[in-house]
Amino acid sequence: MSAAVSLRCIGCKGNHNLEYLLECPDCGGLLYIEYDLDRIAQVQFGNLSGPGVWAYAELLPIPDPLHQITLGEGHSPLLHAPKLGNAMGLNNLWLKFDGLNPTGTVKDRSAVTAVAAALQFGYDRIGVVSTGNAATSIAAYAARAGIKAFVLSTESSSRPKVCHVNALTAHFAMYQGNYDDMIIGFDKAVDTKAIFDGGASRNPYKQDGKKTMAYEIFEQMDLQIPDYVVYPVGIGELLLACQRAFRELKLAGHADRTPIPVAAQSDVADSIVKALANDAERTPTPITYTIAEGVAVGDMGAKGDWVLEDIRTSDGLAAASSDAEVSEWQQRLARLEGIWAGPTGCITLPALAKLVRRGDIPSEARVVCTISETGLKSDLEPPDIAVISTDPVAVMQFLTT
Amino acid sequence: MSAAVSLRCIGCKGNHNLEYLLECPDCGGLLYIEYDLDRIAQVQFGNLSGPGVWAYAELLPIPDPLHQITLGEGHSPLLHAPKLGNAMGLNNLWLKFDGLNPTGTVKDRSAVTAVAAALQFGYDRIGVVSTGNAATSIAAYAARAGIKAFVLSTESSSRPKVCHVNALTAHFAMYQGNYDDMIIGFDKAVDTKAIFDGGASRNPYKQDGKKTMAYEIFEQMDLQIPDYVVYPVGIGELLLACQRAFRELKLAGHADRTPIPVAAQSDVADSIVKALANDAERTPTPITYTIAEGVAVGDMGAKGDWVLEDIRTSDGLAAASSDAEVSEWQQRLARLEGIWAGPTGCITLPALAKLVRRGDIPSEARVVCTISETGLKSDLEPPDIAVISTDPVAVMQFLTT
Repeated sequence: MSAAVSLRCIGCKGNHNLEYLLECPDCGGLLYIEYDLDRIAQVQFGNLSGPGVWAYAELLPIPDPLHQITLGEGHSPLLHAPKLGNAMGLNNLWLKFDGLNPTGTVKDRSAVTAVAAALQFGYDRIGVVSTGNAATSIAAYAARAGIKAFVLSTESSSRPKVCHVNALTAHFAMYQGNYDDMIIGFDKAVDTKAIFDGGASRNPYKQDGKKTMAYEIFEQMDLQIPDYVVYPVGIGELLLACQRAFRELKLAGHADRTPIPVAAQSDVADSIVKALANDAERTPTPITYTIAEGVAVGDMGAKGDWVLEDIRTSDGLAAASSDAEVSEWQQRLARLEGIWAGPTGCITLPALAKLVRRGDIPSEARVVCTISETGLKSDLEPPDIAVISTDPVAVMQFLTT
Repeated sequence: MSAAVSLRCIGCKGNHNLEYLLECPDCGGLLYIEYDLDRIAQVQFGNLSGPGVWAYAELLPIPDPLHQITLGEGHSPLLHAPKLGNAMGLNNLWLKFDGLNPTGTVKDRSAVTAVAAALQFGYDRIGVVSTGNAATSIAAYAARAGIKAFVLSTESSSRPKVCHVNALTAHFAMYQGNYDDMIIGFDKAVDTKAIFDGGASRNPYKQDGKKTMAYEIFEQMDLQIPDYVVYPVGIGELLLACQRAFRELKLAGHADRTPIPVAAQSDVADSIVKALANDAERTPTPITYTIAEGVAVGDMGAKGDWVLEDIRTSDGLAAASSDAEVSEWQQRLARLEGIWAGPTGCITLPALAKLVRRGDIPSEARVVCTISETGLKSDLEPPDIAVISTDPVAVMQFLTT
């Protein structure tokens, strides 16, 4: 059973049946899935079980168990991080480490519902334009479901990601040029219904998988709501999905409030941070390189406006970080808590540290910081490591100094 | 509370208190931890919860919650794999995918108990000689626990693993020469009690963490025991730990039988396979290179004899595979089920396929095949991928062919 009832347009607020639509037929606006709040009120949080995200099947728009494929995604740990919290002046910091997903990133939560929706609507092929994490994730779930994944990646994609995608699908091409050029042809193909849309920008069925992170946080905190949740923001899908889930928990009577959202961006792609600081509209900007590939989005499109509205109406915060700051906190996270995250995955940390330092977030706040990807997908240059001999005296000296 | 009661020697069967011992004080034999079976009989399998491996705290030798550090290890999915099963002639194949652990491998299950034991016995430093997975895992848990990890790796270690270890600890050295030379000095240092032993060969507290995989399989199969469980065998720690756990489940009355163990080795390090085939003792052999680094063990030492005895007394099986066979099944696993595993992690598949083909394992058997590591830790050469233009006609053609 699913509590999903219809598609709703964020623009004209128009209502549509639960069909495969990528935009509002009336105004062209973005669509999201609306759920029956009375049904959500009946959900027994704290007592749910099931494989992968389907522990929350009632809260996802895929009613038929035959379409509910899984690789065991989600159910990621929420780890108390006192040493890292101390390093940034927080007494109550929790890390939601989504690097433990099947392909190592939070994208698995939405790839599984994207591929499940492809099955639901009778498609045997799904496509995505991605430099990495979305590509590996869509290709993995398509393989699991037995449908074809078509992946288009830029030539600059990291080596581990290229090897990973190549293992998963035979339909993999690289392109020269930039994402904005490629997405034009891709969207045209998707609009002909020749192939199911596995991208993050429009498909309402895909994005809802990410709501499961909010439900897990709620359950892992013993049905309490944290004060703040920090999200990496590229297109902004994770923030939008989780905050929508938290709002529905409140509207259905499970919780008495929603957390304050915090958007973490790169300082080369900081349109949300700038718009909030200037009390202005979002201005797309051409971006330069950042190690945080997953948030390298200069033009967030319509979803950017939605993110901005969401943050403004919930007294949210945002901060941008440089690559140097990201690397510094990536290292600190590893040394202090033993967690190895990719730059996109831990860009939330310097943003959070900055907001605490400014006094925007109080030290006693209960903060959940999402760590959205493992460090194992990065393509780092190996460091210089000291070489020692196998002589027992030298070994003893190394081990006891 | 813990059901652990004493240390038992596998050689002279002598009994010792639960202290930090690396070998039997009487005969020098390997030690394992003995549990109170009446206490195990009271464990409520199916209703256990807790962070990481500590869901099974009663069944581990670390009683004090203060020492029970975690990164959310374990709880990995058991995935039904009908397409892969079909490819090897099995009707009922399940994959236990341990690549979803915090550092991407099954080693996290034993690194967590190794570091917890270091805390228990008052150590503030732990060491390991490892080419990769054990190194990253011990370093991660030591960081989490706030103690120092000392890591010694060969110069041939893969790039992702070197970057990973370097992020986690400041005490990291490379050595020229082979493992056998280095372990001499390491074991000398460990024997002086200058540093806690994080290695896989002797520490009885470390190995018990891997028993949790067996408990999870038992719970995930609705308290049933599979017919066969396939393990990668390097030193053989996973096989020994899981089969011991299954035996204890039977002795305590939870199950009516144990699964038949299957050892998967590389054909350049196949001492168990040869000993079984020849009905002979195990003969250590100098090994050559294999892509399955984690099972590249020419001399399994005393644990090898233990593995051999374990397999013989339980009608177990073994098969060795070439690198080409491993790569073939690595690819098949990715394309058919969407799972990207490293060579060590999926060496179980060609071994299993071989045994089914020979008729040693019947097609209707219920088989659990362990997949012990993610593919993201491998250092593969990037494949050649076709390059296409961003012209919409070309994109449409690619997506619809």
